[in-house]
Amino acid sequence: MKTYLDCYPCFVRQALEAARYAGASDRQQRQVLNQVLDLLRQTEDGLTPPEIGDRVHRVVRSITGIADPYRAEKDQSTREALALYPRLKALVSGSSANKALDTALRLSIAGNIIDLGPAPQYDLWTVVERVLAQPLTIDDRDALKNALASLSPEESLLFLADNAGETVFDRVLIETLNEIYGLRVTYAVKGGPSLNDATVEDARAAGLHKVATVIDNGADAPGTILAHSAQAGARCSPAFSRVFDAAPVILAKGQANYECLSDLERGVFFLLQSKCPIIARDLGVPLGSSTLAQL
Amino acid sequence: MKTYLDCYPCFVRQALEAARYAGASDRQQRQVLNQVLDLLRQTEDGLTPPEIGDRVHRVVRSITGIADPYRAEKDQSTREALALYPRLKALVSGSSANKALDTALRLSIAGNIIDLGPAPQYDLWTVVERVLAQPLTIDDRDALKNALASLSPEESLLFLADNAGETVFDRVLIETLNEIYGLRVTYAVKGGPSLNDATVEDARAAGLHKVATVIDNGADAPGTILAHSAQAGARCSPAFSRVFDAAPVILAKGQANYECLSDLERGVFFLLQSKCPIIARDLGVPLGSSTLAQL
Repeated sequence: MKTYLDCYPCFVRQALEAARYAGASDRQQRQVLNQVLDLLRQTEDGLTPPEIGDRVHRVVRSITGIADPYRAEKDQSTREALALYPRLKALVSGSSANKALDTALRLSIAGNIIDLGPAPQYDLWTVVERVLAQPLTIDDRDALKNALASLSPEESLLFLADNAGETVFDRVLIETLNEIYGLRVTYAVKGGPSLNDATVEDARAAGLHKVATVIDNGADAPGTILAHSAQAGARCSPAFSRVFDAAPVILAKGQANYECLSDLERGVFFLLQSKCPIIARDLGVPLGSSTLAQL
Repeated sequence: MKTYLDCYPCFVRQALEAARYAGASDRQQRQVLNQVLDLLRQTEDGLTPPEIGDRVHRVVRSITGIADPYRAEKDQSTREALALYPRLKALVSGSSANKALDTALRLSIAGNIIDLGPAPQYDLWTVVERVLAQPLTIDDRDALKNALASLSPEESLLFLADNAGETVFDRVLIETLNEIYGLRVTYAVKGGPSLNDATVEDARAAGLHKVATVIDNGADAPGTILAHSAQAGARCSPAFSRVFDAAPVILAKGQANYECLSDLERGVFFLLQSKCPIIARDLGVPLGSSTLAQL
């Protein structure tokens, strides 16, 4: 997805929010603001929003000297989600056999509300109930099921993770996929802290290493910034790019992965809640809807 | 009020919105964005938000070549408010004698929702009903009544107007003040178009010239930018500044006047709805509250 002009006010807002999460002084906040205004003025055309967001959040980390401004929030999100884990499992096991995958997919979408970029306010269980009841506005479940059924025992699903805490909801989906398809899953997280995105540490805290092969994409940037999506070059490692290119089926969580990969025409399955009006419009769905779209 | 860092995302958003009101092409919108980012980067410390907003909206008018981007919206606001005028008058005349001024003050506050800067979405009559029912969070009505009662027949109330359409609600208040106090009112509007602020043309369209002496402040800028509130110098004319300095009682409508004049300690009565979270916090009231505060 291209960066729309409407993304610019949001970059400025996010920079200030991230600086405050990092405990920045007033003077540091002003420095962040100034440097981000400079940065936004100088960005070349053709970048996706996460490529610019990456630079914005690097400014915050550099000026504040805080390598992981969202550390405490990520830990808390994971703890809160783990506390719900038994209830999430009960929802899946309480579903009829042909509804279990549907429930698990919806729970993974519900977990996508744990996103401190666009929407800091939510009640987690209210979101779970809403997403379970809500129809998918784009519904490529049949295509996903066909793709998963076609995987050979040697192949694995590449699952692009999004935020810490959301990882627990993804774990429930992966466990369900395992039970239904006997599926191997590679769960790719970030190579370092960026916003509240999950790293290997966050994924392990949520128990993902017990149900999937956890790898990192080599980048401390939001989304999945590959060479072919950026004039500014890849942020992901060459090793990760090879995994990506070779993956027979890719399931990508969240808005930032959509923003990075929506123009690839690679058949990626995007699983997300549209929390940002600009992304919702780009995707052609109402704000606040749940989507499973193959593009 | 000083400009908070949180005002900066809002300046960028307002610039894009104003450019679109002016019918700007994609290319012009990008030019507006770039020039506003430069401008924000270069603003000196100590300016109030309307002083920066003034520069932002001048960029929009300059790049688009549209002298009055909100012309159509202002006309529509005035028409909609005039259509409500008989109902507003009925509300005042239906009030008991000692409640008439209270009702008229609240209607003037209700009209302050007509503001295309911070909050483009509202239903006018719903707002009227809400503000009539809502307690004033800061309530300096007694001080205002005392000040008005102390005016000699030669003196007049200086009423600093805000937006087009809101003018009709102010007219109802001024007519009520006239009936109760036999008061003379000087109604000061903007010297030229800025946002959807009322000009002499807008005030006349709302019939203000029938109930008050309409003057303009000489500035095509939001709020009331006097020499003593700005490092960057006055935008209001010397003639208006003399009227301001000599005024025995000043009633200032809306957020921009608060932002410009709140630090004067001049005893100005501010009559507004707090539609912006930053202004609400500065004023010490909840968002969405109605206020009559003497400062």
